[in-house]
Amino acid sequence: MWGGRFSTGPADIMREINSSISFDKRLWREDIAASKAHAAMLRDQNLIPMDAAAEILHGLDQIAGEFEQEGVPENLELEDIHMTVEQRLSQLIGPAAGWLHTARSRNDQVATDLKLWVRNACDEAIAGVVGLQRVLVARAEEHADTIMPGFTHMQIAQPLTLGHHLLAHYEMLRRDASRFDAARERLNECPLGSAALAGTSFPVDREATAKALGFDAPTANSLDAVSDRDFALDYLFAAAQCSLHLSRLGEELVLWSSPAFGFVELPDAFSSGSSIMPQKRNPDAAELVRGHAGRIIGSLTSVMIMMKALPLGYSKDLQDDKQPLFEAHDLLIASLRALTGMMAAVAFIPERMYAAATQGHSTATDLADWLVQHARVPFREAHGVAGACVKAADERGCGLDELPIEILQSVDDRITGDVYGVLSAEMSVRSRRSYGGTAPDLVRKQLAAAKLALARP
Amino acid sequence: MWGGRFSTGPADIMREINSSISFDKRLWREDIAASKAHAAMLRDQNLIPMDAAAEILHGLDQIAGEFEQEGVPENLELEDIHMTVEQRLSQLIGPAAGWLHTARSRNDQVATDLKLWVRNACDEAIAGVVGLQRVLVARAEEHADTIMPGFTHMQIAQPLTLGHHLLAHYEMLRRDASRFDAARERLNECPLGSAALAGTSFPVDREATAKALGFDAPTANSLDAVSDRDFALDYLFAAAQCSLHLSRLGEELVLWSSPAFGFVELPDAFSSGSSIMPQKRNPDAAELVRGHAGRIIGSLTSVMIMMKALPLGYSKDLQDDKQPLFEAHDLLIASLRALTGMMAAVAFIPERMYAAATQGHSTATDLADWLVQHARVPFREAHGVAGACVKAADERGCGLDELPIEILQSVDDRITGDVYGVLSAEMSVRSRRSYGGTAPDLVRKQLAAAKLALARP
Amino acid sequence: MWGGRFSTGPADIMREINSSISFDKRLWREDIAASKAHAAMLRDQNLIPMDAAAEILHGLDQIAGEFEQEGVPENLELEDIHMTVEQRLSQLIGPAAGWLHTARSRNDQVATDLKLWVRNACDEAIAGVVGLQRVLVARAEEHADTIMPGFTHMQIAQPLTLGHHLLAHYEMLRRDASRFDAARERLNECPLGSAALAGTSFPVDREATAKALGFDAPTANSLDAVSDRDFALDYLFAAAQCSLHLSRLGEELVLWSSPAFGFVELPDAFSSGSSIMPQKRNPDAAELVRGHAGRIIGSLTSVMIMMKALPLGYSKDLQDDKQPLFEAHDLLIASLRALTGMMAAVAFIPERMYAAATQGHSTATDLADWLVQHARVPFREAHGVAGACVKAADERGCGLDELPIEILQSVDDRITGDVYGVLSAEMSVRSRRSYGGTAPDLVRKQLAAAKLALARP
Amino acid sequence: MWGGRFSTGPADIMREINSSISFDKRLWREDIAASKAHAAMLRDQNLIPMDAAAEILHGLDQIAGEFEQEGVPENLELEDIHMTVEQRLSQLIGPAAGWLHTARSRNDQVATDLKLWVRNACDEAIAGVVGLQRVLVARAEEHADTIMPGFTHMQIAQPLTLGHHLLAHYEMLRRDASRFDAARERLNECPLGSAALAGTSFPVDREATAKALGFDAPTANSLDAVSDRDFALDYLFAAAQCSLHLSRLGEELVLWSSPAFGFVELPDAFSSGSSIMPQKRNPDAAELVRGHAGRIIGSLTSVMIMMKALPLGYSKDLQDDKQPLFEAHDLLIASLRALTGMMAAVAFIPERMYAAATQGHSTATDLADWLVQHARVPFREAHGVAGACVKAADERGCGLDELPIEILQSVDDRITGDVYGVLSAEMSVRSRRSYGGTAPDLVRKQLAAAKLALARP
Repeated sequence: MWGGRFSTGPADIMREINSSISFDKRLWREDIAASKAHAAMLRDQNLIPMDAAAEILHGLDQIAGEFEQEGVPENLELEDIHMTVEQRLSQLIGPAAGWLHTARSRNDQVATDLKLWVRNACDEAIAGVVGLQRVLVARAEEHADTIMPGFTHMQIAQPLTLGHHLLAHYEMLRRDASRFDAARERLNECPLGSAALAGTSFPVDREATAKALGFDAPTANSLDAVSDRDFALDYLFAAAQCSLHLSRLGEELVLWSSPAFGFVELPDAFSSGSSIMPQKRNPDAAELVRGHAGRIIGSLTSVMIMMKALPLGYSKDLQDDKQPLFEAHDLLIASLRALTGMMAAVAFIPERMYAAATQGHSTATDLADWLVQHARVPFREAHGVAGACVKAADERGCGLDELPIEILQSVDDRITGDVYGVLSAEMSVRSRRSYGGTAPDLVRKQLAAAKLALARP
Repeated sequence: MWGGRFSTGPADIMREINSSISFDKRLWREDIAASKAHAAMLRDQNLIPMDAAAEILHGLDQIAGEFEQEGVPENLELEDIHMTVEQRLSQLIGPAAGWLHTARSRNDQVATDLKLWVRNACDEAIAGVVGLQRVLVARAEEHADTIMPGFTHMQIAQPLTLGHHLLAHYEMLRRDASRFDAARERLNECPLGSAALAGTSFPVDREATAKALGFDAPTANSLDAVSDRDFALDYLFAAAQCSLHLSRLGEELVLWSSPAFGFVELPDAFSSGSSIMPQKRNPDAAELVRGHAGRIIGSLTSVMIMMKALPLGYSKDLQDDKQPLFEAHDLLIASLRALTGMMAAVAFIPERMYAAATQGHSTATDLADWLVQHARVPFREAHGVAGACVKAADERGCGLDELPIEILQSVDDRITGDVYGVLSAEMSVRSRRSYGGTAPDLVRKQLAAAKLALARP
Repeated sequence: MWGGRFSTGPADIMREINSSISFDKRLWREDIAASKAHAAMLRDQNLIPMDAAAEILHGLDQIAGEFEQEGVPENLELEDIHMTVEQRLSQLIGPAAGWLHTARSRNDQVATDLKLWVRNACDEAIAGVVGLQRVLVARAEEHADTIMPGFTHMQIAQPLTLGHHLLAHYEMLRRDASRFDAARERLNECPLGSAALAGTSFPVDREATAKALGFDAPTANSLDAVSDRDFALDYLFAAAQCSLHLSRLGEELVLWSSPAFGFVELPDAFSSGSSIMPQKRNPDAAELVRGHAGRIIGSLTSVMIMMKALPLGYSKDLQDDKQPLFEAHDLLIASLRALTGMMAAVAFIPERMYAAATQGHSTATDLADWLVQHARVPFREAHGVAGACVKAADERGCGLDELPIEILQSVDDRITGDVYGVLSAEMSVRSRRSYGGTAPDLVRKQLAAAKLALARP
Repeated sequence: MWGGRFSTGPADIMREINSSISFDKRLWREDIAASKAHAAMLRDQNLIPMDAAAEILHGLDQIAGEFEQEGVPENLELEDIHMTVEQRLSQLIGPAAGWLHTARSRNDQVATDLKLWVRNACDEAIAGVVGLQRVLVARAEEHADTIMPGFTHMQIAQPLTLGHHLLAHYEMLRRDASRFDAARERLNECPLGSAALAGTSFPVDREATAKALGFDAPTANSLDAVSDRDFALDYLFAAAQCSLHLSRLGEELVLWSSPAFGFVELPDAFSSGSSIMPQKRNPDAAELVRGHAGRIIGSLTSVMIMMKALPLGYSKDLQDDKQPLFEAHDLLIASLRALTGMMAAVAFIPERMYAAATQGHSTATDLADWLVQHARVPFREAHGVAGACVKAADERGCGLDELPIEILQSVDDRITGDVYGVLSAEMSVRSRRSYGGTAPDLVRKQLAAAKLALARP
């Protein structure tokens, strides 16, 4: 495989540590596609014999069929997917297989294969993100008017509509999709034809292979092309960022399904039980989504560290890009599917949400705002007045809207009975009509925009 | 500051841990700019008295002048830059200052300030990247024909031109610039007016403040707007990726300036000495660039972990976004400046590079390629023949091009004397004419394209 | 400073990036202590003149006094704390200062200084951990009988005693202390006298300096001594692990102080308010503790990455060990102090805890265990029976202990009226008497052991 | 499996994401060992019928035999290794299997299994470390006198002996072994009997199971016991630190085997070739060791993030501890084996090392030290003189020891002809006789100590 220079074979541990076939076999489709594009180009440029090219193309198709049916054989001696394919081709068509590696190296080959894989991973991630967005939009539409408490610092802050809350997650996912899009776009230059690092002396047509494989163009510098793994990191960061978003939704499901909140009930299909406690219904999938964020970030970290301070030209360290990529992608897709399933199936409990939303003087800001708007009190002063009213309510153990007008006026005599009109959760959410606010009619506008965006191809 | 509800002040450790003024004072320009935009909008919407607005705007300008001159005072009791500004305003203009916080919260305020800061950080990073690119292009132009060894696995692989090698770094930086661009674009929605989390009941004009602050639009969901730190992570990832690129160039400078390579000499202005070894000339700055990659990745990691599993609405954990951002940015800018300086000043030693490029049978691939092209030998077979020739040369302790023709022919009789024409480093680099290849004329084409791209505004 | 070899000074950016005085001045006490030990040893070995040694020692004391009073001056030209001290010494005592650097290098000097600093950081961390443990023990003693719900998956699992829960945190901190102890012990070998990397030709007495600085022994290999930063990583990992523990306690404080749980009330001294919502009382310090875990892990990550693949001998990258160390330590100490203050001051609300503990059929395991113990039913079968009882209770909307005996017996006729004796939260916790269990009397035993351990010096 | 409470089964994605059998089957030996210890204890405490206990123990042995022979079946419906074993037991012995889960939960079971696994991983890591140390000692013994250049900043600093350099790696590994030892010791408390989180009402004998499984004691707090994964992190950090050390040795092998250095030659058994460049011999295994450090750190990062802010009691996130542990351990063991093989097989090239050691005025420090010792010049001044001599040598293009005495004296007239006695590499290394220094006789002392330490059991 390495030509005539070596006298003895590898040590056992050398063979083991060096071989990547156990994991890079996952790239077989990409490897065969790239080899077919390469062989067709070599033929069209008259760089290899016409009949050898035909045999190669036919043989590669046959191998694809075999792998599809029987899986990829793992022979450590063949080291990787590239040699596994070439060796099988050689068994099938004989010495003609030897033409295939003309004008390429495993360095440009693996960069091409992996870019194809990552490009597809981006597409799958986007599809998963959009799927979750659709469910969020559907549930937000059901609950555009449902009142829930909005939290800051896990304390009740102001009433929100559930639709508005769900659309916040929609927005986060919108940025995720745009990140995968950008990663996909940035990677879409084809390394094939960069050969080992210097380019090749064969008059190859790199435009042709790039086009055949769906790339926008060939890469502009052959040394960069074989040394670069930015595309892996772009994907991994997009996945890490997305998983962080999902961990936040996962956390909310865990909290909301706990009896302390009781805002949601997960169906049996998304709950699990306990081997010892017969009463348990656990939100395992939501917890796993949360946990998976750690591992996806860990995958990103792995590859960043691996890249650090590598001089240019291919180094074998780069082989350690694949397992983190595969792991992160599998975890991300599982997380997206699990949350999509859970968000579609979860039962919201509006009564519990409403009860919580009216706790904790959640409309104290509305009282302060009322003072500004109706009594022309500077906000900072109004904020102080409202704080004093809260204190009075706490002392009486009642809600702000249950304080008698005399008490309110004893705090500040500019308060009139009209103030009660803004102290209910309903009035509070309806009043939040600034662009992007939680008012039901604004939520409906956001929903319309979201549906339009999701309808785009 | 928190209104009338609290009876006692904070414990000492509470004041210390909670206060952020020691670091968020760095946001003073952004805080004042955002407050001015907010005040002007409140005035234009008739939400606050005209004269109060005028006093506020004037007062804010005065504060800006003070801070510019004397720095920002650090008073832990005032907690953060927002309160420091508001409190100073109140000292300057009295109760009219109390109107400023109408229809906003520190939650949307800090998100706005920080986005403005990150946007500017992106601009600075891009400028730094472009500055380094310009130097690389200038040096590549000088050395479009200079022959150096190309390495894979730190072994000599094939001859390269130095210009081509430098342009590989140019390409890496091109992707970095595009990443900062994308980060800048993705963040450019204005949170101001999202208030605490639900939006506000005041009829604010969010389009107006967004426009005044150079944003493309207001954010579409107020809850997302105050909970989101994607923009910090987008910047930090772009910085981490860029620092990884810089670490690779730093590593090359460290290696190349070591006597083992001797490819470059750093001038005194970029060397340092030893407190004990009088002969030392150390490439400290290149090492620091390499080391800084670790800390920039550490900053990214910090903020990713901080974001994990936070339920929506602002949580105080978010305060820990700032120091990692500031640190990463300072380290990145220093790294870019240091490498720009070094790359401009470094002396390349072409003789050493050339000598190394002709070591190690670096044209063995050319021999194999010659067999394919001139003797119609399938590449895999040609590769084996060339390997055997390398072995023969090693046995004789000579270069491939020094092997007598009889020896070559004893390995494979299809080899003719013409083969010597491809065995020199000069012929090797000239032959690598595939798109993106290392041939001097192709390097000049790449240079022309790079100069065009850099000339764009 | 670097002797006579350099012709021109550093470029501006070189001076900036290379200088560490702005942060390594924090090592001034350690630097002076190590220099004093070194000078005394040089004198005792007759390696420097007696009078020069006396002047040096006196001068170093004077510098210590100056720095204590006025702080350490930051002169970028002097690069670092070592040169800053030596240069000031030279101003104070003239050329005699030139003897001090005999038989040492900044490489062994900085390793020694930093080990001294880290050793002290370990001591401070242990003191902070023990302080928090004391408070946990005190509060656990108050609440050895207080019943609270134990959670798994954030679902109510089984009743616990609050004392038992607090002691779980005590145990976590016990491991933390042992980790700082081990870090301290592992680091306690003195690098001084390793010089640049090879040792020195002067007949120094490394045992003497090691002993003077409180080390157990000198390091055994001079090359390792100057290349090693394990001690920084050991500390950082211990800090990261500790911060993870603190983040879990912080999370519980955030959750428990939210109205959904209402298990605790933080006093004003550990709460903060909102600039917009007058009713808010936020557990900011607990959130910051949670957030700080991210940054401490980020610091560990930074230094690990920095160390990766550095060849032996000092490299300048190592300078990037300090800021992450300083930052992590400051964040850890602040976190420990904040939690110690909060845990001492927090008011537990036993009624809310008890109410929650009796929700959700938390004694279903007790029912299953009763079947095993009193009806000799295999546990797996008993678990199924208890599950069916839970279902029956849910259908009736009542607690397990409110199910009539007929219903229980219709599920399984081996159940007798005696079963009600195990279905209360009180009986449940009292029955958990396996070693380490939650029963109040066992908690008291654990407390006695903890107090004994904490009383040890 | 979860008793009678659930009406419908899990959704497909729920089953997939929730099932861990595909990876936790690796714990089958530990699971069976722990179950046997548990069953024997239940029998001895009369908690389950004698005959059921006998059947259980026999059945578990039978399962162990099956798994050994045929592997562990992966049935997603059985979720994990615990249920897979219990279910198989139930097939083999019928309802008697139902007694096994008495007084335990999967929470304490998995903690016990995983601790057993990590304990064994520590033992394997220590064995691997010691194996590498033995090889280093053997090679150091061969090369106690071999002169090589010592580097700082990758610049030639002072001559070293190769034996000394190799022993620096020995020292690093000594700390690694102590870290695995400490991790092993800290983890060695048995969680079994902690049940779900509260302990159990059955009168179990936790001392007995702890002892049977080789633990020092049972854990002291049942809630901590099921919530704790410190032991995983202690192992992962020890592995990360060790992998960083290995990455430094790997880097040196990569550099030293490059033609620029040419200090070593790797045998064919540890080299690999190129698919395109027939002359290549690449140090792939050393590069992979370097790269693996990234992934091991990534694994540590994953689990740290996963643990952050988890409230006490088991959360499903904890399931994400296993794959990072398994991956890190496999990578570490492979790295240790590969380096052990390479260090045993590598051929050092003393001529190349010697030639490099005499380059770059590596004895300039010796000149300065000579001035201090023989002319009583303060070191700082001597350092300046030596620097000026270096400059003079550079101007003449010669070595320090080739400068005529007149030139040396024109720099400083205190220099006499005796100085040449310290300017050779041989004299330089021989003079470095401070404890831990590079002098051959000191290296031999270190070697004797190392061999003694390695001979200990």
